[in-house]
Amino acid sequence: MLTDRVRFKPLQDKITDAVTAAKHIADGTNLFISGFTAGYPKLIPQELVRRAESGEQFKINLFAGASTGDMVDGILARANLVAWRRPYMSDKFMRQEINLGKISFKDDHLSQLSAKVRAGEWGRCDVAVVEAAAITEKGHLIPTMSVGNTPTYMREAKKIIVEISESSPLQEGIHDIFIPEDPPYRTPIPLYRTADRIGKPFIDMNPDRVVAILFSTEKDHCPIFMPPDSNSKRIAEHILEFVQHEIKKDRIPPSLPWQAGVGDVANAVLSGFIEDKNFSSIDIYSEVLQDSVLDLIDIGKIRAASGSALTLSEKARARFFNEIYRYQEKIVLRPVEISNSPEVIRRLGVIAINTAIEIDIYGQVNSTHVMGTQLMNGIGGSGDFMRNGALTMMVTPSTAKGGMISAIVPMVSHVDHSEHSVDVVVTEYGLVDTRPLTPRQVAEQIIHKCAHPDFRDQLWDYFQRAVKERGGHEPHILEKSFFMHQLFMEKGDMRQKG
Amino acid sequence: MLTDRVRFKPLQDKITDAVTAAKHIADGTNLFISGFTAGYPKLIPQELVRRAESGEQFKINLFAGASTGDMVDGILARANLVAWRRPYMSDKFMRQEINLGKISFKDDHLSQLSAKVRAGEWGRCDVAVVEAAAITEKGHLIPTMSVGNTPTYMREAKKIIVEISESSPLQEGIHDIFIPEDPPYRTPIPLYRTADRIGKPFIDMNPDRVVAILFSTEKDHCPIFMPPDSNSKRIAEHILEFVQHEIKKDRIPPSLPWQAGVGDVANAVLSGFIEDKNFSSIDIYSEVLQDSVLDLIDIGKIRAASGSALTLSEKARARFFNEIYRYQEKIVLRPVEISNSPEVIRRLGVIAINTAIEIDIYGQVNSTHVMGTQLMNGIGGSGDFMRNGALTMMVTPSTAKGGMISAIVPMVSHVDHSEHSVDVVVTEYGLVDTRPLTPRQVAEQIIHKCAHPDFRDQLWDYFQRAVKERGGHEPHILEKSFFMHQLFMEKGDMRQKG
Repeated sequence: MLTDRVRFKPLQDKITDAVTAAKHIADGTNLFISGFTAGYPKLIPQELVRRAESGEQFKINLFAGASTGDMVDGILARANLVAWRRPYMSDKFMRQEINLGKISFKDDHLSQLSAKVRAGEWGRCDVAVVEAAAITEKGHLIPTMSVGNTPTYMREAKKIIVEISESSPLQEGIHDIFIPEDPPYRTPIPLYRTADRIGKPFIDMNPDRVVAILFSTEKDHCPIFMPPDSNSKRIAEHILEFVQHEIKKDRIPPSLPWQAGVGDVANAVLSGFIEDKNFSSIDIYSEVLQDSVLDLIDIGKIRAASGSALTLSEKARARFFNEIYRYQEKIVLRPVEISNSPEVIRRLGVIAINTAIEIDIYGQVNSTHVMGTQLMNGIGGSGDFMRNGALTMMVTPSTAKGGMISAIVPMVSHVDHSEHSVDVVVTEYGLVDTRPLTPRQVAEQIIHKCAHPDFRDQLWDYFQRAVKERGGHEPHILEKSFFMHQLFMEKGDMRQKG
Repeated sequence: MLTDRVRFKPLQDKITDAVTAAKHIADGTNLFISGFTAGYPKLIPQELVRRAESGEQFKINLFAGASTGDMVDGILARANLVAWRRPYMSDKFMRQEINLGKISFKDDHLSQLSAKVRAGEWGRCDVAVVEAAAITEKGHLIPTMSVGNTPTYMREAKKIIVEISESSPLQEGIHDIFIPEDPPYRTPIPLYRTADRIGKPFIDMNPDRVVAILFSTEKDHCPIFMPPDSNSKRIAEHILEFVQHEIKKDRIPPSLPWQAGVGDVANAVLSGFIEDKNFSSIDIYSEVLQDSVLDLIDIGKIRAASGSALTLSEKARARFFNEIYRYQEKIVLRPVEISNSPEVIRRLGVIAINTAIEIDIYGQVNSTHVMGTQLMNGIGGSGDFMRNGALTMMVTPSTAKGGMISAIVPMVSHVDHSEHSVDVVVTEYGLVDTRPLTPRQVAEQIIHKCAHPDFRDQLWDYFQRAVKERGGHEPHILEKSFFMHQLFMEKGDMRQKG
């Protein structure tokens, strides 16, 4: 077992327990961990919590690839151990602490993180804690279910702690590790097709920096995606029909790769391909690959799927582990600075589909802040894809909270993506292609095609009054623009009665 | 003269007058013109106006590279001849008509336009009217002071009308024309250094599509930039000091190329290099090159300057024309899809400096809409550079209208750039590097370092109340967030009295 997983002999004497390993982490440590929805370390966080519970006073600054599981963000936040957290996270308790101002958080476009860390923008790289399937004969590291920023974190960290995941398959070859040069004198990222492998199947590691190796049987706990509900299905139908129409009109070639954000709606869009006969050979150039990608591979519809992480349900993970030989012909996992690279996204001409919290009548999008103030998860890679994709779509069910919140509002309470970066808006009611429209035409169409019927009258009334009373290229009555948000905050319902 | 300027013999019999040439333009024509602040056609617009004045009823859809002069946008708008206009424009009367909803306008990121036109998103390409210095022996076109979208417009247009500018120098070699492939199967844009020339010094032209050639002695009328005022100078000082500091800290290499938006502040920043001894060998990778670039070349401080247009004062233009041999060793003009390419901007690691209408306490930026409704000019290329630059800055004088408008507001009334894409905020009062700060820390610093002292109390009061009453990651009191805009709309002054 040991010799399978830690094949580089000089490191075998670094194998130790979590208590010993975690001693390298103290108050004020900048801790850089692997993990991008999956593939995060599990033992060290538990040990840090144990130390806190036994009375030790300390805080760490926690930097990951993106979100992790309760076993990192959840338990560390609850133990009050996190001073800073960057970037994107999705833990409920951590979110609460961030919104209370108790955990410092700064949201970043994911494609830029590794470069910022290499440039020294985030300060000292004290310790990297990374999950691995194995350390090879030559001392290279084979990651597990994600790559994220791990290659850069390992290159920059003064000390490295490796958690060997015994439950991960030993199979190598699903990862493609390429750290781009840094500016100013660099050459293009040599990735021309979704399937291209441009790096090595492992992460380079300086063995001198490895201070501890642990063995772990813990597993990732990924969010469980729901089977597509009727709204998600309708959104998916609108999208597939629209793209098919654009292909027929010869405005886009039939082979553009697809990106879909994380979550149920994104999963539903990809699931929509299963039955749609118009799409038979699909490229996915995305950030997180979900269950639907395995389903599509199984029926022979995927030509290539590229991402930075595989976020699979337990069932799908078992399937993947069992037949990794087959899946790895189709799937490649890359550093997030490659999966989300503006250069590559623009070059390939990605069709980008991302989910919004709310969208306004002019197509401005809020992806991050509920009621303008409460952080949800973060912008993640949506800005990377929306700004640089060839065809960009923002999708959302038309309502939330049992119909009391409209996802279409007069003005979004926070903007992450401006209308200039949003080509298409989709809800279960319909789809608006904003590209050939003026903002006023966009407003008319979004209200009538995308908004839930319960809210159309009040949205239309606001828009009409704004045109009349204020005019302008994008008419707004500033002091009334959040009236629906106010209604919700006062009465728990955005619907205007009587 | 004629044989100097139209050296391709088969086209010499296409030389005609504007009346004859303009007959190819009728009601509903999609008209694609050269021009990107400079280099726009001058004769055809005048002829269209003459026809309108003589009673002919017609409207055209007008597509340019970016803004043009009064001789295009001004006279055509005043003659009521424009149904649609895309993208960025800066004409006063046209702006008014757009804000009244009388001219349809849609704002686009400039880097994406040519590809959208090639994809057919903008419909039929009826007629291209382009200004040229000459047509070569082989029938290629030498543009004048801008490239913009002209190469694509000429490739796609069914008919081409050329206006030969007799006042432009015959010298060839300042332009570098490269039309990238379209997705999905394309290779990188082979541009690795600011100075690289990757294409041809002329635009390919299908002579069969040339329906008319005119000779013109008209000149560009570019906006006159003011010599830097004290505010612009202080903004420039803050920026140069900050970048020098970052270089010393080794967070950025000393040789990153600079981009500066159009206008007085941008011109001032570049002028700041003249006296700053820390910067001796500068690369400019920008969109529009202004007078300051010539000044810097003259004192030997420019290594290379790349843009899509040269917008020069009359004096500077004379200087440039006289010594074009010398200047063209340093200057290269490219299609805007190359000058603004996300791929190239990210690869080179551009330091991007763009001007805002207003910036809010969390670093959200409004570049386009005064009071949230009235279009100013458009987003232009700012989104291309801000989203993809290595270090991105938004600058603005702290007040406008004689101190009655604060450029720092609680919440911007329109968002073009989200805080995720804005690293640094600068006014004449100071500079805030938002990268290591939480949003609440950003708010504190922007209020105390960037806002004008007349507004600090009311901004601070708002922020404190928002933290207390609403909290969250980015505290806001939605229904009060535009109180300063409201004050201005009601009393013509954002300052809170008493």
